[in-house]
Amino acid sequence: MSTPWVYVTRQLHFNAAHRLFNPAFSDEKNDRVFGKCNNVNGHGHNYEIEITVFGPVDPETGYVIDLKEIKDLAEEVIIQDCDHRHLNLDVPWLRGINPTAENLVIAFWNRLNPHFTSAKLFNIRLYETPRNFVDYRGPHAG
Amino acid sequence: MSTPWVYVTRQLHFNAAHRLFNPAFSDEKNDRVFGKCNNVNGHGHNYEIEITVFGPVDPETGYVIDLKEIKDLAEEVIIQDCDHRHLNLDVPWLRGINPTAENLVIAFWNRLNPHFTSAKLFNIRLYETPRNFVDYRGPHAG
Amino acid sequence: MSTPWVYVTRQLHFNAAHRLFNPAFSDEKNDRVFGKCNNVNGHGHNYEIEITVFGPVDPETGYVIDLKEIKDLAEEVIIQDCDHRHLNLDVPWLRGINPTAENLVIAFWNRLNPHFTSAKLFNIRLYETPRNFVDYRGPHAG
Amino acid sequence: MSTPWVYVTRQLHFNAAHRLFNPAFSDEKNDRVFGKCNNVNGHGHNYEIEITVFGPVDPETGYVIDLKEIKDLAEEVIIQDCDHRHLNLDVPWLRGINPTAENLVIAFWNRLNPHFTSAKLFNIRLYETPRNFVDYRGPHAG
Amino acid sequence: MSTPWVYVTRQLHFNAAHRLFNPAFSDEKNDRVFGKCNNVNGHGHNYEIEITVFGPVDPETGYVIDLKEIKDLAEEVIIQDCDHRHLNLDVPWLRGINPTAENLVIAFWNRLNPHFTSAKLFNIRLYETPRNFVDYRGPHAG
Amino acid sequence: MSTPWVYVTRQLHFNAAHRLFNPAFSDEKNDRVFGKCNNVNGHGHNYEIEITVFGPVDPETGYVIDLKEIKDLAEEVIIQDCDHRHLNLDVPWLRGINPTAENLVIAFWNRLNPHFTSAKLFNIRLYETPRNFVDYRGPHAG
Repeated sequence: MSTPWVYVTRQLHFNAAHRLFNPAFSDEKNDRVFGKCNNVNGHGHNYEIEITVFGPVDPETGYVIDLKEIKDLAEEVIIQDCDHRHLNLDVPWLRGINPTAENLVIAFWNRLNPHFTSAKLFNIRLYETPRNFVDYRGPHAG
Repeated sequence: MSTPWVYVTRQLHFNAAHRLFNPAFSDEKNDRVFGKCNNVNGHGHNYEIEITVFGPVDPETGYVIDLKEIKDLAEEVIIQDCDHRHLNLDVPWLRGINPTAENLVIAFWNRLNPHFTSAKLFNIRLYETPRNFVDYRGPHAG
Repeated sequence: MSTPWVYVTRQLHFNAAHRLFNPAFSDEKNDRVFGKCNNVNGHGHNYEIEITVFGPVDPETGYVIDLKEIKDLAEEVIIQDCDHRHLNLDVPWLRGINPTAENLVIAFWNRLNPHFTSAKLFNIRLYETPRNFVDYRGPHAG
Repeated sequence: MSTPWVYVTRQLHFNAAHRLFNPAFSDEKNDRVFGKCNNVNGHGHNYEIEITVFGPVDPETGYVIDLKEIKDLAEEVIIQDCDHRHLNLDVPWLRGINPTAENLVIAFWNRLNPHFTSAKLFNIRLYETPRNFVDYRGPHAG
Repeated sequence: MSTPWVYVTRQLHFNAAHRLFNPAFSDEKNDRVFGKCNNVNGHGHNYEIEITVFGPVDPETGYVIDLKEIKDLAEEVIIQDCDHRHLNLDVPWLRGINPTAENLVIAFWNRLNPHFTSAKLFNIRLYETPRNFVDYRGPHAG
Repeated sequence: MSTPWVYVTRQLHFNAAHRLFNPAFSDEKNDRVFGKCNNVNGHGHNYEIEITVFGPVDPETGYVIDLKEIKDLAEEVIIQDCDHRHLNLDVPWLRGINPTAENLVIAFWNRLNPHFTSAKLFNIRLYETPRNFVDYRGPHAG
């Protein structure tokens, strides 16, 4: 019988400020497109991030991957740079990116994905608020 | 490089009463099939609805779609008709439909779907209670 | 050393329909006072009820009271009558009561309180929605 | 029989950026006391605020107070000024206040309290994150 | 028009103890691989299990399947054996299985799946904690 | 004007196994009193603990107490001993205590309380499950 594949998910969180705007837009257009999210001094969120990895269950350990590995990796390549930061100003690898939830989740994917080998990064979900969230499954989807 | 596609989700809620029954069934059969949900005077729920849209991220805005657009659309075509209503009696476009979670989520899909063009409606999840929910992905699935 | 007293809480839930109105008011006044909650055919909620009892910890069992006792009692005197019911029409002991959260929590207190002897009923919290709730601590408070 | 008194609570939310620091402290001391919360460009939160009012139940309406009144009042005197804002820079009535959760909840009390007459403001709870929150019951407590 | 297919999900919970280890590993290797989860006397969790079934909506009932059927089946083949038990020691059909979330969700699938006929078991999600969970979609996936 | 006093709360969690029984009871009586919780091999929970401290707001910092101090203290005197442990067997300072939620919350109070000086420990809430919890306010209450 073939090895079963399972999806494993670890949730992490960070708090950050951000401002939505496009420097190529006029102030008036930024206001119209981004509304309250365009406040010059920024606003903020308690972000929740769910990282889902898909792979075969190792028959020796019963793990697809130790969830602590996902946590440690995410802390290292995402959380420590973003937590208690202003996403427009403080994060070198977000420079020049308008920090919408969509753009953030893609940037997080690109930071995490190269580190997975046997188990595959399957999905990243990013909650901006409990009522607003996005999911990204990599550049192959769509 | 091709534009990445992202899933964006907005959650909304409404409170409503409903009664489950099929007028073609005998009273005894309605009781047997629907149990407590067949109470003549109805019962009710705090419904939560999650609307997921899938599409390319606009490079100018960083949005698949402004979540406020989803919210405003859902308010207009679903929430304002269902909130604080009796789903069997008060909603013209649910007339003749037994308001199970399954039938509701299909009806909501049919109300929302024609309004999406570039971004596609991907999934609607409807929570009847925190422990009971349904998902619908359109008539193409299954 | 004296026996320590602890608060113990058990949460239960039920789903019900209700309509807010005062038969002594004109239709116009009911509309003005109760708004959407005055819908003639009713609306509904997933109610959550938290029952808190306060008493000394029995040194033999380590319990103030077995939480199962609270659950069984609440099922018997509240839940089985209210769950999947219309609170204005189906519950004999709510007849003539306008089922606001305030009036419900008082009625629930009056149903439960006589059954507690050594441990004392301390508080009942009733969630109408996750964002709206009431607490009652008995007729002595205020 | 005397009128029973009930606690009624309404939860609201807003998203905001803030930075913790005391301009009278050296940079080094601000860093030591406020740690990551002292990031110059700020960070942010999804704040949840729970407003609890205590009063007699009006026998005509079954309400202590219409929860919509609490909501409208809080929107007017707190939420519209704080939502999608930087609390250090954008809110006139927070000027000069270090926006810790403690200082915010006191400022919110002082904004809301004068508007309550028969029903009394009893408690304001402010969640900075789901794991960190504060409660204030007015200057009389402690 | 063809019958629409809908996903229906029911959540259940149970409390259990477990210990992660592989008897073929040395003590030192078990410690290294499983860390705190290898504590000899075990630790425990409030497990949440979400069972998702996918099928056509019966035009007579408006149900894919009565959610009570899922609940009753899961109680019978999973919950009554696992609730308030030690998963390594008390559950005959888990004997010899290292009770990681991955191995548990596969075992639960194998217990439940043979009971579904017209509607198909689509996914089982198992929360070990609110921040750690796994999903399994059967041996065909991967 | 006097310094305002505020309640500050920090939530933490740990996972543990336990078994409820009184060695002075017969097996039959332990079964009758503790039911499923008396399983010989134990069962387990994701415990959530909320620690509430009450004190004056320091005008220089805007803090009653740095929440990190509460977290670090609780980690040191409670969490590191209880997390991923069997509460009956692995925790020296719980030896001989029947680990009901009531007895645990009292033991946690006694561990934490001596460390608070200006700010006072006001309440500890312990969730055994999301639906069952206890609160303790010290030996003076009751």
